[in-house]
Amino acid sequence: MTEATFAIPLWADLLAIGIGGLQGAMFAAQFRDRRLDLLGIAIIGIAAGFGGGLIRDLLLNQVPVALQQNWYLIVASGAALLGMLLERLFSRLGTVITVLDALTIGLYCAIGTTKALSLGLPAIPSVFVGVVAAVGGSILRDMLLNLPIALMHVGSLYAVAAVAGASTLVTLLAIGVPVFIAATICVIVTFGVRVLAVLFRWSLPEQRRIERIPRIAGFRRPRQPGR
Amino acid sequence: MTEATFAIPLWADLLAIGIGGLQGAMFAAQFRDRRLDLLGIAIIGIAAGFGGGLIRDLLLNQVPVALQQNWYLIVASGAALLGMLLERLFSRLGTVITVLDALTIGLYCAIGTTKALSLGLPAIPSVFVGVVAAVGGSILRDMLLNLPIALMHVGSLYAVAAVAGASTLVTLLAIGVPVFIAATICVIVTFGVRVLAVLFRWSLPEQRRIERIPRIAGFRRPRQPGR
Amino acid sequence: MTEATFAIPLWADLLAIGIGGLQGAMFAAQFRDRRLDLLGIAIIGIAAGFGGGLIRDLLLNQVPVALQQNWYLIVASGAALLGMLLERLFSRLGTVITVLDALTIGLYCAIGTTKALSLGLPAIPSVFVGVVAAVGGSILRDMLLNLPIALMHVGSLYAVAAVAGASTLVTLLAIGVPVFIAATICVIVTFGVRVLAVLFRWSLPEQRRIERIPRIAGFRRPRQPGR
Repeated sequence: MTEATFAIPLWADLLAIGIGGLQGAMFAAQFRDRRLDLLGIAIIGIAAGFGGGLIRDLLLNQVPVALQQNWYLIVASGAALLGMLLERLFSRLGTVITVLDALTIGLYCAIGTTKALSLGLPAIPSVFVGVVAAVGGSILRDMLLNLPIALMHVGSLYAVAAVAGASTLVTLLAIGVPVFIAATICVIVTFGVRVLAVLFRWSLPEQRRIERIPRIAGFRRPRQPGR
Repeated sequence: MTEATFAIPLWADLLAIGIGGLQGAMFAAQFRDRRLDLLGIAIIGIAAGFGGGLIRDLLLNQVPVALQQNWYLIVASGAALLGMLLERLFSRLGTVITVLDALTIGLYCAIGTTKALSLGLPAIPSVFVGVVAAVGGSILRDMLLNLPIALMHVGSLYAVAAVAGASTLVTLLAIGVPVFIAATICVIVTFGVRVLAVLFRWSLPEQRRIERIPRIAGFRRPRQPGR
Repeated sequence: MTEATFAIPLWADLLAIGIGGLQGAMFAAQFRDRRLDLLGIAIIGIAAGFGGGLIRDLLLNQVPVALQQNWYLIVASGAALLGMLLERLFSRLGTVITVLDALTIGLYCAIGTTKALSLGLPAIPSVFVGVVAAVGGSILRDMLLNLPIALMHVGSLYAVAAVAGASTLVTLLAIGVPVFIAATICVIVTFGVRVLAVLFRWSLPEQRRIERIPRIAGFRRPRQPGR
């Protein structure tokens, strides 16, 4: 299953990076009391912009694509500084940015999954790499800001959208669909799940345990249930 | 000193991953007020289950073993979800899990150390890689949960057990003991130190400084000692 | 632009690692209420000492230099334990340590930037790698201690000094200056910016947004400005 990699033109890649950087800076703007400086904002922009691609390439044991061109760093940090300055403007464009971001995670998911497959990884790890490529920037952003990682908590489906897209992609390739069509469907599925989740407030259930366990004979409870 | 790598059968590896994932979910269950969702639990399971092996392979500049098979991701996330659901059951099995975990860190320590040696690393970095392979999952789990890293704080010896095991392994190999015997002794030493530390509450001393420094002639204190 | 790498003798490298480890332990000493144990201090020393070099080599897809010699781990953890024990002594030497640290980030910046260039990376990613090599240890230290990352917040220029040094280096190489001279100037620039920033309390501005956006015709504000 070593298919060709799904690729997008450089301008589309840079647009995705830029949207990520912009969003990173707007997210950081909530924490104005923390005294982040301009460099901090640029770092958040870089992490949110191409952190996912960076982790993808580290996992795949490749020199990160984002370090093989001058543009990635310029666009990610530039977009972050722009997002910081024009935060009031961009916050009015919330819907546009959510839509573009849903497209971005779809694209990154398709690129990451096909790249992993083309390097010979099996199906499930390829899905994992695709998902990490799509949402790793958001994880890195939260870790650098010393915040709980948003996507691990109850909220609108984000990583789950990428899991759905990447799984669809791998399944379609396995039944012989050409890579470009499969990748396009992956982008549509990821985009659709994400946008519908935002619209209808879909979320995953919170962690829970089964409270009543049937008493197994000979199995002693360490303490009285009254505790 | 490029010895053969100590290897364990896939089922044993997956059992170790599963125990890690299970423990990760049980650990996360303490933080029920944080609203982690099912995906968050699966991520913790993956991090705790094979995070150590992942960091080991990143340091050794190899594609992670856990991404070369479908089973690792399935077992780690499945074990985490099982651990979440049956937390009440597994929390009664505390002793069994501590014992299995001590075995797991011993095995990962032996695998990591011999893998590093076989790739040509010198003795001390190989011990380091072995220890990271054994305890890296626990570090990654705490970082993802935005918690202080447990093993850096006073508590029952955990990483120290791995340091003892890996050092023994490297010493035995240096004096010509065959790799399988040396690795077995490494597992026994790591297991023994860990289990005894839990039983007898052994711990490392807390950080401290030498309070009284002999006055060196001509060495001016910046402030009066009364401060 | 695949120049030769700027290299420093092993003793100078180990001195830099040692200063990093020492500072890491002294930094951790502020958090005595956290009950870090001796292993925790050693981990902080390793992270602060050669964390930057480690991240540099991960990004460049190389086996970390610090794992190819026994000395790096010994010096970093030894320096950290020494820094912990003799914290009262070293805290009197604050100026000396700040000066040596400024030299260290200059050296690591020059090494990292030239190493990236020699592996064929373009100019801007090479500056990025050089800066990460210089300041990555400080980022890793803060992440392991579960603290906000100091260098992302308003404070004396630290990473900016490395950006200035690495940019100078890349520019000088581009106009044909030999690598040794360019690297030396990089060290001087980094050192100078850092020391002057500490002396004159130079810092970057805090994140801010443009408050008044000119009203664009046909662009509706979602809420009244009175909010």
